[in-house]
Amino acid sequence: MDFNHVVTGHVHGNGAAAKRKMADQLSKNKITALALQEIARMTGKLYVPAAVSGRHVHLCPRDIETLFGAGHTLAHMKDLVQPGQFAAQETVILVGPKGSIEKVRVLGPAREKTQVEVSVTDSYKLGIAPNVRMSGDTDGTPGCTLVTQNGSVELAGGVMIAARHLHISPEQAADFGLADRQVVTLRAPGPRAIQFENVLVRCGKEHFLEMHLDTDEANAAGIGGETFLQIMK
Amino acid sequence: MDFNHVVTGHVHGNGAAAKRKMADQLSKNKITALALQEIARMTGKLYVPAAVSGRHVHLCPRDIETLFGAGHTLAHMKDLVQPGQFAAQETVILVGPKGSIEKVRVLGPAREKTQVEVSVTDSYKLGIAPNVRMSGDTDGTPGCTLVTQNGSVELAGGVMIAARHLHISPEQAADFGLADRQVVTLRAPGPRAIQFENVLVRCGKEHFLEMHLDTDEANAAGIGGETFLQIMK
Repeated sequence: MDFNHVVTGHVHGNGAAAKRKMADQLSKNKITALALQEIARMTGKLYVPAAVSGRHVHLCPRDIETLFGAGHTLAHMKDLVQPGQFAAQETVILVGPKGSIEKVRVLGPAREKTQVEVSVTDSYKLGIAPNVRMSGDTDGTPGCTLVTQNGSVELAGGVMIAARHLHISPEQAADFGLADRQVVTLRAPGPRAIQFENVLVRCGKEHFLEMHLDTDEANAAGIGGETFLQIMK
Repeated sequence: MDFNHVVTGHVHGNGAAAKRKMADQLSKNKITALALQEIARMTGKLYVPAAVSGRHVHLCPRDIETLFGAGHTLAHMKDLVQPGQFAAQETVILVGPKGSIEKVRVLGPAREKTQVEVSVTDSYKLGIAPNVRMSGDTDGTPGCTLVTQNGSVELAGGVMIAARHLHISPEQAADFGLADRQVVTLRAPGPRAIQFENVLVRCGKEHFLEMHLDTDEANAAGIGGETFLQIMK
């Protein structure tokens, strides 16, 4: 398995400490992936780390300037497991017809289109009825208002419930016998054991083995801390 | 199938309108159960109505008096599908170490022990880490504070995440080939299709066919409005 695509190209910060931390994280991911492969060879069962996505916002460069000032670029706070993706220091307030939610994390880097990902629980609080969508598929989605101390943006669309999905690199997909756009079922163990159907495989160079769930899904399955989901075939 | 146990013994309110409303509800339940039986005979697939339980509180008579005044009894607002159970007009505020939640519905009738059922989402807000439990099994569960305009109660225990379960009458269980305490898997259809494992069958005279989920589970599965879950065998 070739992990070079993970090890290059996305170290944030200039200090040696930041680079060391990033190297540690990558090393941990590599060890995890190798261990999962080994378990799969021994047991025939494929396990995938669960990543719980809280509500968050992706912003286009223009909306970043409106919300945080002219010439502003997102400040890196923490790398995510998906290569190149990071939690930014910036947060916004989401405002809907029925209520608002503060301190909603902005994820970087900037995207072409602004997109808001919330849970169904959040959508009741906001008074918005978004559909379940894959990231980027914003056509026909409802909008909301983003507010900061610096300004506000009225979105005509872009609010969605993220469809559950499985990130995987081409090398990992080859090892696990999975293909891009395949639909699989993943099982979370425990007293609240759940089988999540309709999990879309998203395979590509910029993906790393991880199943993405939202907070409703994680809470329903009792997932807290590090959990591995089994791919059911 | 004998529905007599449903049709007797739990009409609340004195007016003819209340009795008529109750009769309508029972008639609807009876029709639903008969239709589900017919579908099961035709297709071999057993479907069960989903009931989403929001956060709620069951109170003992002493706590009712502390929270609502000496001699107080719960005021009926709406019958639930489970025979004899009702939503009361009373609400309380739940207070935990990290936060509080207002307007939490009290369910009647009064119980021997006070019990608070919240979602995992709620538990983060309150700053309480309850276990997944079956109703009544409060040993070793954490507490919280219940507050009203009239007073407050410090609970030493009784806060839980309700374990998902399936209510069924003895007659319905016989028809569907299910037994009390059996553990089954139920599937919710749709874009967020989920199979809920570890669903405990609760069969008894005071039960009526219905699967109980909490709001996290319903939101994770995209259940809104009337939904039927399929029992997987």
